[in-house]
Amino acid sequence: MEIKDKSVKELETLSQEIRDRIIDVVSRKGGHFSSTLGAVELTLGMHYVFDAYSDPFIFDVSHQCYPHKLLTGRWEEFETVRQFGGLSGFTKPNESPADYFVAGHSSTSISLAVGAAKAIALKKENRVPIVMIGDGSMTAGMVYEALNELGDIKLPVVIILNDNEMSIAKPIGAISKYLSKLLAGKYYQGFKGKVDKFIKKNMPEGTTYIAKRMEEALKLITPGILFEEMGIDYIGPIDGHDIAEIIDTLQIAKAMGKPVIVHARTVKGKGYPIAEGQHECWHGVGPFNIQDGVFIKKEAPKAATAVFADALLELARNHENVVGVTAAMPSGTGINKLMKEFPDRFWDVAIAEQHAITSMAAMAKEGFKPFITIYSTFLQRGFDQIIHDVCILNLPVVFAMDRAGIVGNDGETHQGAFDISYLRFIPNMILFAPRDNTTLESGLEFAYNLTGPCAIRYPRGAFKELIYPSTPFTLGKAELLKVGSCKKLFIGYGAGVSRAIETESLHKDDIAIFDLRFVKPIDKDTLVELSKKYNDWYVFSDSQKQGGVASAILEVLNEKKIHNVDVTSFEYNDNFIEHGDTNLVEESLELLPQQLVLKIK
Amino acid sequence: MEIKDKSVKELETLSQEIRDRIIDVVSRKGGHFSSTLGAVELTLGMHYVFDAYSDPFIFDVSHQCYPHKLLTGRWEEFETVRQFGGLSGFTKPNESPADYFVAGHSSTSISLAVGAAKAIALKKENRVPIVMIGDGSMTAGMVYEALNELGDIKLPVVIILNDNEMSIAKPIGAISKYLSKLLAGKYYQGFKGKVDKFIKKNMPEGTTYIAKRMEEALKLITPGILFEEMGIDYIGPIDGHDIAEIIDTLQIAKAMGKPVIVHARTVKGKGYPIAEGQHECWHGVGPFNIQDGVFIKKEAPKAATAVFADALLELARNHENVVGVTAAMPSGTGINKLMKEFPDRFWDVAIAEQHAITSMAAMAKEGFKPFITIYSTFLQRGFDQIIHDVCILNLPVVFAMDRAGIVGNDGETHQGAFDISYLRFIPNMILFAPRDNTTLESGLEFAYNLTGPCAIRYPRGAFKELIYPSTPFTLGKAELLKVGSCKKLFIGYGAGVSRAIETESLHKDDIAIFDLRFVKPIDKDTLVELSKKYNDWYVFSDSQKQGGVASAILEVLNEKKIHNVDVTSFEYNDNFIEHGDTNLVEESLELLPQQLVLKIK
Repeated sequence: MEIKDKSVKELETLSQEIRDRIIDVVSRKGGHFSSTLGAVELTLGMHYVFDAYSDPFIFDVSHQCYPHKLLTGRWEEFETVRQFGGLSGFTKPNESPADYFVAGHSSTSISLAVGAAKAIALKKENRVPIVMIGDGSMTAGMVYEALNELGDIKLPVVIILNDNEMSIAKPIGAISKYLSKLLAGKYYQGFKGKVDKFIKKNMPEGTTYIAKRMEEALKLITPGILFEEMGIDYIGPIDGHDIAEIIDTLQIAKAMGKPVIVHARTVKGKGYPIAEGQHECWHGVGPFNIQDGVFIKKEAPKAATAVFADALLELARNHENVVGVTAAMPSGTGINKLMKEFPDRFWDVAIAEQHAITSMAAMAKEGFKPFITIYSTFLQRGFDQIIHDVCILNLPVVFAMDRAGIVGNDGETHQGAFDISYLRFIPNMILFAPRDNTTLESGLEFAYNLTGPCAIRYPRGAFKELIYPSTPFTLGKAELLKVGSCKKLFIGYGAGVSRAIETESLHKDDIAIFDLRFVKPIDKDTLVELSKKYNDWYVFSDSQKQGGVASAILEVLNEKKIHNVDVTSFEYNDNFIEHGDTNLVEESLELLPQQLVLKIK
Repeated sequence: MEIKDKSVKELETLSQEIRDRIIDVVSRKGGHFSSTLGAVELTLGMHYVFDAYSDPFIFDVSHQCYPHKLLTGRWEEFETVRQFGGLSGFTKPNESPADYFVAGHSSTSISLAVGAAKAIALKKENRVPIVMIGDGSMTAGMVYEALNELGDIKLPVVIILNDNEMSIAKPIGAISKYLSKLLAGKYYQGFKGKVDKFIKKNMPEGTTYIAKRMEEALKLITPGILFEEMGIDYIGPIDGHDIAEIIDTLQIAKAMGKPVIVHARTVKGKGYPIAEGQHECWHGVGPFNIQDGVFIKKEAPKAATAVFADALLELARNHENVVGVTAAMPSGTGINKLMKEFPDRFWDVAIAEQHAITSMAAMAKEGFKPFITIYSTFLQRGFDQIIHDVCILNLPVVFAMDRAGIVGNDGETHQGAFDISYLRFIPNMILFAPRDNTTLESGLEFAYNLTGPCAIRYPRGAFKELIYPSTPFTLGKAELLKVGSCKKLFIGYGAGVSRAIETESLHKDDIAIFDLRFVKPIDKDTLVELSKKYNDWYVFSDSQKQGGVASAILEVLNEKKIHNVDVTSFEYNDNFIEHGDTNLVEESLELLPQQLVLKIK
């Protein structure tokens, strides 16, 4: 959509149309909501001043990109956002040339802008990278690494700091307080001298009209000392819902030819009063009733997250040394309950996975039992810290990995596919998985008593209710749930156990079902025993095939020189997995029990 | 060693003895040198004011910990530093209770201090974490994540910023410039009012002598605005070689009961004039002649690093779109040569692996061909960025992993053991390895022409010279170097190929030798063919067993339902690998050809 010839008034009308479209679609389909509503005017400003098909438009995390999608030829198609086969909820280059990069994890934007700026400089082009980043994303260390280089090389990059003073959950940490202090500064105070000097230096002769206009337009330049000390110019705070002010400021920032942060104050959920100023619950939503903002609840069994949180709460009540941390996902991981009851023992450290892990390693050394509650995909951010700070010293840290397996509508950036493969080879690490609510509960008790590091995984949504009673966990011991009368053996791990059970129920044969429980240390003895009776094995696990569960089993069979067993892995193939309803995604991967049963000869 | 009752004069004498001991041992044995010489007085100050057996002493990276080792019962044993079976070159809790944590990767210290401070607060103890961190380590994002929480929770932590204005190589980035600006401030300027206020508030009545003394002693408090904006008090800069000043300042900082940064200016290599102010070459050294500082060179073949750098230089000369980055290891990775010839295309972005990778992903998107030159162990720091920013978009970034396999004296924090296991399951990633200098050169040419991401690995030190000529790389194609007349097959990967060749030469049988070349995509067809002739396979690779090369081969055999093959992996077992001369370490792992040949039945 071409908007450069529109008046401010027309843009204001357009912003209302964009909001209406977002509210309409998200209320019916679900999606990211409050952050994207808060970014409408800023996005219009970006499109007015920059060119999305030439200037790199970089949206941090990109959950605020819906207005951008609507402005770049996806108005009708927006109906399909986050649906299987439809638009992604994030920017995605293969969806539109206006989408510069993929993003779903936070705080990559400034690094991308630095790379783009270097490329542009080498190619001697006039494009300018424009970044939109939320205050929440400013807490991750990556941002600081990027600013450190940007403030040094001083290539032109415009960074809109979209500050709604709450990130996903609530503001955390010193930076957040610092930003709030800046926001509290009055508008229109600006340093006239600085502006004059800038105009004199940068504007060619005879452009007094523009100069005058800019001067009027420039609402404020207050020194954002923290950024200026790092060599990045700071303009702000401006009203992130005032289109005229946004456009004027972005024009100035673009003309400056160096790195500039434009600090814009916005209201999350802007334009849908019920969500305005509300916290985490309106960040990503399911369908809701537009009139009253009541979420349309589907009857759903208790989610694994809730089972985990309740069990951890019980554990924390019984053991004073239980502590825990989340990296900006308090309600997503259920740890918010614990933060409320034990504010001195459970922390949200903001988007800071590296720091979360290493700080908890020190607590473990001091005799505490830390639970790091995190999504499988975000734990990737702390990979080196797991090895270097936890596992070398064999410290008793528990990694509680939520959203293991397919996560549904968030898609490829968020799939919890890799954790088994990236943890299994780390010395001292113990990997086990519950198969249902009961074993999730007993698993936490077991984890509490371990003297070294462990990681457990559980899915997004609810475990299936299983008919098999469970025994307590014993280190490295699997559990045979059911013997079979044929040569087949179904091996499940975690949520894969229920998939195995369901598949078995659809098969004509009476098949043995085995819950592996531990992928490390793996139950070699029992696997050897089983090989004597069964030789056609099928592995069910919601994880990547390479280096995963079946691979661990093959290592055992080879070590034990067992040659008569065929292993079929029903894990994920070597591709990134797209977004959509989990059931549809699994169907596309041919992983539904009714599909699997057909594959089994 | 008890030093609390010593006078400043005695401490000065002791500092000379410590320096003499370090210079003596390191000149004969090699080790970290200039950073540890620069930290002698600061370490004495720490031990004078704090208690290493109670207060958590946290040394960032910990290559500056030699004075600390000497002060905590390891004076004699220091003779064995970094030798196999001897003292580690880093802090190591199982070596001494005075070593709080393990560290070898940078920038973990403040996170550890935050965790320790939380633990101390919960236990209601009076211990205070004391951190020593260099200016180089301040560039990594983790530090900022930790400061963000520390500035918020405000628990007592004293951070000595040991600023020698050069980090390992040279100062980089905005932070570095900022620190230099602070250092340039004159001493003795301090804010008397602030000091008075502090003394009034914190000193009990009747301690006027101490108050007076402190006031005199306190050389300077200038506002380190960047830190103060983050909620961390700043004192400095002080002279990091003036013991009296250090002690006085640390006493004040300790008494403040909140987070404080003490900014100390030091000279790297202090006390050994030849090394003072010198850059990277005196950071970690081999044996040298004390009198003239001339390194005792051993005749050594050209290191893989140098072969790589020359080949990359050639490539960069031939192709304008070749760019590259290192994260604070310019000469370690050989990229310094390229930075010199092409300062606009090759960068050192400081200790910022995450940013390095993601910024290069953007350059790849812009049509450049980035080479990320990095040690295998440090690439762990950018794990999520490899997946999220490079591989999802299938961008043509080359990860050139130096120090793959056993690194020798640095030991467990630095082993390049895991890269195959942590990269192999990432969709779109291509993994291959050269076996000698020739294939390293041709491998770079091959990597240049790939349209997606790839990672190549090569060892510390030199490749063995091999007798087998090589063909050019073809994607996913292995190379049979030699047929055999028995059922055995030796499969090598990377430097493992020469180990295979050497082992074969010691064996009585005539054994086929196969260079796998690609562990991903793996050459399934050829493996199937080989299984028809050979059924006793041995895998030689300098990498972790779980999820590694043999594991990849087992996945193929299973997929192809080949049951007649036994695979023996000569990769690393599931342990962290200790430090020491590479040959001795490999001997301890029973990986020397003369040991392997005995294991082969």
